[in-house]
Amino acid sequence: MSEAHNLAIGVDIGGTSIKFAVVDLEKGKVLKETSCTTPNVSASDIASLVVKNINVLIHQYPDLSRIGLGVPGAMNAERTVVQYPPNFTLWKEEPLAEMIAAKMPIVDLVRMDNDAKCAVAAEMHFGSAKNEKFFLLATLGTGVGGALVSNGEIYRGAFGGAGEFGHVIVDLNGVSSPSGVRGCLEAYIGQRFLSERTLDALSKSKQTSTLKKFIAGKILEPKDITEAAQEGDTFAIEVLADAGRYLGFAMATVANLLDIRLFLVAGGVAQAGDLLLEPARAALRENVLEQMRSTVEIRPAKLGTKAGVIGAALLTRD
Amino acid sequence: MSEAHNLAIGVDIGGTSIKFAVVDLEKGKVLKETSCTTPNVSASDIASLVVKNINVLIHQYPDLSRIGLGVPGAMNAERTVVQYPPNFTLWKEEPLAEMIAAKMPIVDLVRMDNDAKCAVAAEMHFGSAKNEKFFLLATLGTGVGGALVSNGEIYRGAFGGAGEFGHVIVDLNGVSSPSGVRGCLEAYIGQRFLSERTLDALSKSKQTSTLKKFIAGKILEPKDITEAAQEGDTFAIEVLADAGRYLGFAMATVANLLDIRLFLVAGGVAQAGDLLLEPARAALRENVLEQMRSTVEIRPAKLGTKAGVIGAALLTRD
Repeated sequence: MSEAHNLAIGVDIGGTSIKFAVVDLEKGKVLKETSCTTPNVSASDIASLVVKNINVLIHQYPDLSRIGLGVPGAMNAERTVVQYPPNFTLWKEEPLAEMIAAKMPIVDLVRMDNDAKCAVAAEMHFGSAKNEKFFLLATLGTGVGGALVSNGEIYRGAFGGAGEFGHVIVDLNGVSSPSGVRGCLEAYIGQRFLSERTLDALSKSKQTSTLKKFIAGKILEPKDITEAAQEGDTFAIEVLADAGRYLGFAMATVANLLDIRLFLVAGGVAQAGDLLLEPARAALRENVLEQMRSTVEIRPAKLGTKAGVIGAALLTRD
Repeated sequence: MSEAHNLAIGVDIGGTSIKFAVVDLEKGKVLKETSCTTPNVSASDIASLVVKNINVLIHQYPDLSRIGLGVPGAMNAERTVVQYPPNFTLWKEEPLAEMIAAKMPIVDLVRMDNDAKCAVAAEMHFGSAKNEKFFLLATLGTGVGGALVSNGEIYRGAFGGAGEFGHVIVDLNGVSSPSGVRGCLEAYIGQRFLSERTLDALSKSKQTSTLKKFIAGKILEPKDITEAAQEGDTFAIEVLADAGRYLGFAMATVANLLDIRLFLVAGGVAQAGDLLLEPARAALRENVLEQMRSTVEIRPAKLGTKAGVIGAALLTRD
């Protein structure tokens, strides 16, 4: 099949689920997509799980020979090792791409990058950042990640790890995330923490809320909060407004420090849309330096939750 | 005088004082230095005051014809306009260099840049950052400023204003600085705010402290706090440790976001040395991502309070 040259497998390894897709690199389209739940296991066990799922796709598309991986942690400068991803507590410095390549001799190429860097590459090629030269993409999922684009290129810094937006500190007296960073954004609006904080507030609140059914132990997902808010639940609206405020303050730090004025948001939590983004915009505008107050902007990313797999597949181009 | 080609006037406009120097550009040495107090007046009135002081220096060094200005605010991309410097409440967008040039027809060249960018240029040419490619210089004075160096060059961002380290937010529930940015670093460790917070804490504290003599209304300067701390005053030691903690948290945000691992500190408040920097180092190490924990570093800048005038003079080179 000659069109196989334009196809690659993109894998987006998140803290909650792992997504696998066959991607048309020319059109930026997902032809086939599967997913599985992410177990909290070693990098080597994740590698085995990824190989198992990829083999199913290769069975259907036998000419596929290139794999790109998006992983939720900082990379070394060579992008061969993922370093201490905060939501994988058993991982240290892990050559995940090499582990997978070793298990798949029929595959030509396995490349790896940080998940937010993959998403931003997809948005720059096919999505909402086509002509943008300076911006931050924030990925709001189980973890909170980010990618900085400066002068049209992903900014990686001296050691390859730049862009960790979720570890911007918003409250030095606040709570810690699994990374140990006190009061960082992820500790407030990372999916798990947002759910935990919401359940905690619910159990203390005297407000009525359709979310109270979750106190009994059912898992509360960000989409449950969003759905309740969309139906007018005041408590849920306040939860999202509060999360948006945290997000806006972290963005204000980035704007003040880097004179970046455009922010894109992607990931599951971002599905809340303006319920999250309007309060974020207010906090951002109020807390940037005067000269940028009227020009700072927050936009939802276009490719939604597919940005990760599309960007991962893009890693395989020469 | 042929050596005049290697000389230029450097002016460092701070929130408390304005420094004027005749600088040997080849050696990075200050040959002559004067200063005056900074009045809170319009940019045009500051221009007149600067011209008056420069004329005294030109009287002594008649061949001087080039002036560089360091100003405490963000610059536009062309470096012709300083924008809303937070510690000059009457200024908006001010073409200060042009104002000065218009009043001094005998001068060939007036150039301008942000004060922290001037200081970092001096440190890179003659000081503590000679071979460093990625770092942040923090200037701790009346305001808190900064300059980011990436791949050996000052990073300015899309609109010229990058580097405003003092407006990194450390506590979204905290106090505001004159810039209106809630909980930003400057609102805690900017000279004026540090003094105010210290006096407030003193008046509430039952601890004995040699600083209590300042409650009556005498102006408390950061050097008074440093001197008391150096003499073992526990209260003063705690004030500096607390300031250091704020500094370390703001640096941790920069480290996590940009993978920058080296921080230089300059300016009056930095004269406290390890009394400030050791607590800052502890907070920094504790709140960066695991992979950089053992390599983050804070060093005092070498040129001390002369970095500003030397760097301003360096602006005049072709």
